[in-house]
Amino acid sequence: MTNNASLTAARRRSDRLRQLIDSTAPADAPARGRLRVLTGDRPTGALHIGHYLGTVRSRVELQDKGIDTFLLIADYQVITDRDSLGDLQGNVRGVLADYLAAGIDPARTTIFAHSAVPAANQLMLPFLSLVTEAELHRNPTVKDELAATDGRAMSGLLLTYPVHQACDILFCHGNVVPVGQDQLPHIEQARVIARRFNERYAGGEQVFTEPEALLTDAPMITGTDGRKMSKSRGNTVPLGATADETAKILRRAVTDAERRITFEPERRPEVANLLTVAAGFTGGDPRDIAEEIGDAGAGELKRVVTEAVNDHLAGHRARRAELLADPGYLMSVLREGNERANEVADATLTRVREVMGMLY
Amino acid sequence: MTNNASLTAARRRSDRLRQLIDSTAPADAPARGRLRVLTGDRPTGALHIGHYLGTVRSRVELQDKGIDTFLLIADYQVITDRDSLGDLQGNVRGVLADYLAAGIDPARTTIFAHSAVPAANQLMLPFLSLVTEAELHRNPTVKDELAATDGRAMSGLLLTYPVHQACDILFCHGNVVPVGQDQLPHIEQARVIARRFNERYAGGEQVFTEPEALLTDAPMITGTDGRKMSKSRGNTVPLGATADETAKILRRAVTDAERRITFEPERRPEVANLLTVAAGFTGGDPRDIAEEIGDAGAGELKRVVTEAVNDHLAGHRARRAELLADPGYLMSVLREGNERANEVADATLTRVREVMGMLY
Repeated sequence: MTNNASLTAARRRSDRLRQLIDSTAPADAPARGRLRVLTGDRPTGALHIGHYLGTVRSRVELQDKGIDTFLLIADYQVITDRDSLGDLQGNVRGVLADYLAAGIDPARTTIFAHSAVPAANQLMLPFLSLVTEAELHRNPTVKDELAATDGRAMSGLLLTYPVHQACDILFCHGNVVPVGQDQLPHIEQARVIARRFNERYAGGEQVFTEPEALLTDAPMITGTDGRKMSKSRGNTVPLGATADETAKILRRAVTDAERRITFEPERRPEVANLLTVAAGFTGGDPRDIAEEIGDAGAGELKRVVTEAVNDHLAGHRARRAELLADPGYLMSVLREGNERANEVADATLTRVREVMGMLY
Repeated sequence: MTNNASLTAARRRSDRLRQLIDSTAPADAPARGRLRVLTGDRPTGALHIGHYLGTVRSRVELQDKGIDTFLLIADYQVITDRDSLGDLQGNVRGVLADYLAAGIDPARTTIFAHSAVPAANQLMLPFLSLVTEAELHRNPTVKDELAATDGRAMSGLLLTYPVHQACDILFCHGNVVPVGQDQLPHIEQARVIARRFNERYAGGEQVFTEPEALLTDAPMITGTDGRKMSKSRGNTVPLGATADETAKILRRAVTDAERRITFEPERRPEVANLLTVAAGFTGGDPRDIAEEIGDAGAGELKRVVTEAVNDHLAGHRARRAELLADPGYLMSVLREGNERANEVADATLTRVREVMGMLY
């Protein structure tokens, strides 16, 4: 679905978007004002430093640059690849607390949950008519997620996941979707659905805008065991961990047998990963940090990383704990966001039903 | 999906249901009061005499026996197997006019459209998590519809059609679904979804009741060319046709070379079909009608059928024309039904979100 030509095109669009977002030129203000970011998380557990450096921080930056943002708590996506919802209420509260503690301002960013916006979910019906089963199968993320579930039978929800993601993006006319390169096929699917909807059901009228990927430049952080960060592997540093817990987790981090610390991502991925975390939290360069540590070795590296994480997150943790002590407030934030999302979704669905001749 | 054992079980349940529906015993009243029928039509064109004898009439009977009925205009299902919605508004008005002209009473029967009930459609999300892709593929109706679309690529909407049908049935807690035997796999899929939902997400609580098929005993009417009735083949007698148009259509009906009229469905399907239509509209027995016509041949048979249809439908046509002259009234009927369906759907979705821990 994403061949080289479309990857190049997606990169070009992403670069243009980035320029527009960063622009302070008055002439760019109208176009910037039309940008709307759609992004979010599955509430499968606590957010960790990988989320923080990878997505949460950049969402706050986008918001603070005045870009309108819709931030989705994707509760239905929890059950794409597992049977149990887990402690959903607890996870949702945790995610909300992390968002707000990190600087997401609910007055400027609309935080909402999948399950609370029926009109957005209804778009599944017309959108499913616009994709073929073969296209769903070609989606590499569906393939990967299937492979990751150890031969668990493919559920209808996993198979149709790209269509549901298109609903998320298109219901709120999100035109900027921050993603890693591996997520490009999803964006491409949403673009195809928008285009086909406009052609097939709206006589060419632009009811939906084709969204564009904002490719992330954040470094990919792996777990303390060198594998992908995942709550189920216990290799993450949760944002809610205490300073002591963080120190303990990082002391167990895998490194290698070489004494001298150097930044060589290909040859020494575990050491490079820790340096990247330290750089992420201090704003420094991982090469400089490696140079400073030098022959002091892995122990000193872990001390430096722990200090960077704990210093930077001290305020976050305090705010997080305070927010979690007031679940009523957290839920009121979500309810307000849900209301805003519903207003937008209702208007979109009404327009969709109108062009399809379904307003009776 | 439907093997012999489950077919026998479905038949047994259907027979019990039929007895309960027909019972006038006061002891059966509470159980009868808990019955709710879910049935409906795709608004792909005008309803015809096949619909009338096959489903419309029996819905009126169920309603008049005091069975609560939800009657669905399945507008999203129009695009499961075609790209265009056609004259949807016109078709919906026609279907509504036929329902009311046939005796459906909107004060007792809730007539509603798919696209107007977002909370029912949202059930797609949790329900899709409860079925595997392999199960969707095994559904014989999906297979048949795919075969009938001449190699058109399988759309996501067609593939997930059994799940959407489960939403229709389960959102309103429909426990009686009048179907032909070929539709049993759909009911079985809805039963499986209800069961799995209760087990997986509701800790065994009966949030959803397993629906039961009410197997139809109405004869299957074929088109005037001996094939399945279908608007696209032009082999139907629409309920809205005039007496003259009806006569003209039936004059062209295929029969066979034998002069003497006999009722032999296997050997002489076309002649038997016309006799069945005549019997359906006069309330007589097709064998007796054949006997009466005897050597008068196919011309007389067609005259008898035409007279039966025209006599019986004269009142229907007059009411239908009157109703179509007042589209504002027809739409008000649909809007009221949509409102009732939304109340039921909202309550169901709230309960579903509650047991899934998604009320925030």
